[in-house]
Amino acid sequence: MTQINRAAIVGGSHGNELTGVYLVKKFQQYPNLINRSTFETLVLLGNPKAIEKGRRYIDKDLNRCFTHQGLQNLSLSSYEDIRAKEIQQLLHPYNQPFVDVIVDLHSTTANMGLSLLLSNMHPLLLQLASHLSSINPLVKVYFHQQLRGSGFLRSMCELGFVIEVGAVPQGVLDAELFRQTEQLVYAVLDYFERYNQGKISQNNTTLTLYQYTGVIDYPRNECGEIEAMIHPQLQFRDYEPLNPGDPLFLTFEGKDIFYNGASTVYPIFINEAAYYEKGIAMHLTQKQLIHNY
Amino acid sequence: MTQINRAAIVGGSHGNELTGVYLVKKFQQYPNLINRSTFETLVLLGNPKAIEKGRRYIDKDLNRCFTHQGLQNLSLSSYEDIRAKEIQQLLHPYNQPFVDVIVDLHSTTANMGLSLLLSNMHPLLLQLASHLSSINPLVKVYFHQQLRGSGFLRSMCELGFVIEVGAVPQGVLDAELFRQTEQLVYAVLDYFERYNQGKISQNNTTLTLYQYTGVIDYPRNECGEIEAMIHPQLQFRDYEPLNPGDPLFLTFEGKDIFYNGASTVYPIFINEAAYYEKGIAMHLTQKQLIHNY
Repeated sequence: MTQINRAAIVGGSHGNELTGVYLVKKFQQYPNLINRSTFETLVLLGNPKAIEKGRRYIDKDLNRCFTHQGLQNLSLSSYEDIRAKEIQQLLHPYNQPFVDVIVDLHSTTANMGLSLLLSNMHPLLLQLASHLSSINPLVKVYFHQQLRGSGFLRSMCELGFVIEVGAVPQGVLDAELFRQTEQLVYAVLDYFERYNQGKISQNNTTLTLYQYTGVIDYPRNECGEIEAMIHPQLQFRDYEPLNPGDPLFLTFEGKDIFYNGASTVYPIFINEAAYYEKGIAMHLTQKQLIHNY
Repeated sequence: MTQINRAAIVGGSHGNELTGVYLVKKFQQYPNLINRSTFETLVLLGNPKAIEKGRRYIDKDLNRCFTHQGLQNLSLSSYEDIRAKEIQQLLHPYNQPFVDVIVDLHSTTANMGLSLLLSNMHPLLLQLASHLSSINPLVKVYFHQQLRGSGFLRSMCELGFVIEVGAVPQGVLDAELFRQTEQLVYAVLDYFERYNQGKISQNNTTLTLYQYTGVIDYPRNECGEIEAMIHPQLQFRDYEPLNPGDPLFLTFEGKDIFYNGASTVYPIFINEAAYYEKGIAMHLTQKQLIHNY
């Protein structure tokens, strides 16, 4: 890629994640904040109907609808399947190339600070992530490979990624987190501006990456109901080491359940509200240092 | 009142407040935990359909449906209006008196610890509240007068009250808060047991009460959209003094808005997710010491 021509900032793909919703509204009101001289920036609200209702989605999770198959299937009638096609068109108008960058703004009830969620290892994304984590220690970088068209909005282009901030409840604005996320968006745009201007030096730097290895579900009974909660000693400990034998869950009867994996892992998305229904108590990652990308 | 014969514990009147939902499920599974020798204890889930959907409500807020008018109007067709009538019947079966006690379990995204919400000043409620706050400093007592049949479940009987715990996001279980709430419920039941056994001495004690004086809404534009967030210096400061001139809100543009009331107040329900749509950024209270009740 020689030049970034168009970037998109999307908020409210989940209607109850207010940080992104109100940041996009601010950017729509004050476009100068996101205008840069060398590229165009689009902003849009992902799921307007869910935002209006204050819910994650109306019929299904929009951020799983951007599959090749779903986008081509004109018979799908759910609100989110239809909205995914509209968003695809907004990001790829007739006779224009697809946007080069997607910044998808999300929030989580897990204590993930300012997380960058990457779906591929494009060198420019890694350099951006390295830069952002060097200027702000709250920035963490999570890598979970997703092929193009895997269903996630961010998988629609090579320079697509999520900014996932927390801990903040669904339906709530946290002013401090709002400000930090806003500053991070500006740092992203400034980085691409300098990239376009040839001002980025490709230093050999080091990046700490938390790489996806799997998920853990809550213990459940035969009816699928959860039987335990995140252990108090694990709650809010995203990105910290979880060692074999450490407490993982606490049953409703008060019994500890321990992590019985073979080696140390780094859980994230611990106790994310929206993941109870997905059968996910947390994501597990391995901490990696990568060099010379 | 000479004797308590039947108490009801209700959880999940709001389907996304999981602490009460899973406490009630635990009590249903292990009734011995809530059985006491001198009275009967019923447990029930308030809004099963909303619990299944993981939402506060289906059509409208169940905890505003217990009005005289609504309960008598058989033509109301919303899920919650119908469910309110069912709950009334469960608490007041044919040929039996209404339950003497209602303990309604709620949670909030505000940092309210273990709050007791009282709707009237029945001496036994005040004595109970005094006892509970003396054994656990996390217990706070909020008084907001509500007449019988005012729409709240707790207003259905004189010894009705809410246990409101937080901060916890909607749709999330916090194990520590679950355990604290559970212990508080047992302390309530134990107190009524000792009351029935004549073992409560009516000491002249002192109780700190936070009395409702009004609400503050978010600053909004002409379309009703919020224009500011809870100020970072106020966030999580429930039950702490807010003085004239203290920061109250932060606009999306970064401008401080200060509290311009005439005197010190004690805000609670600060940044409760479910209250954005109700036009409430916080409740204001006055701190009072009451004696000789």
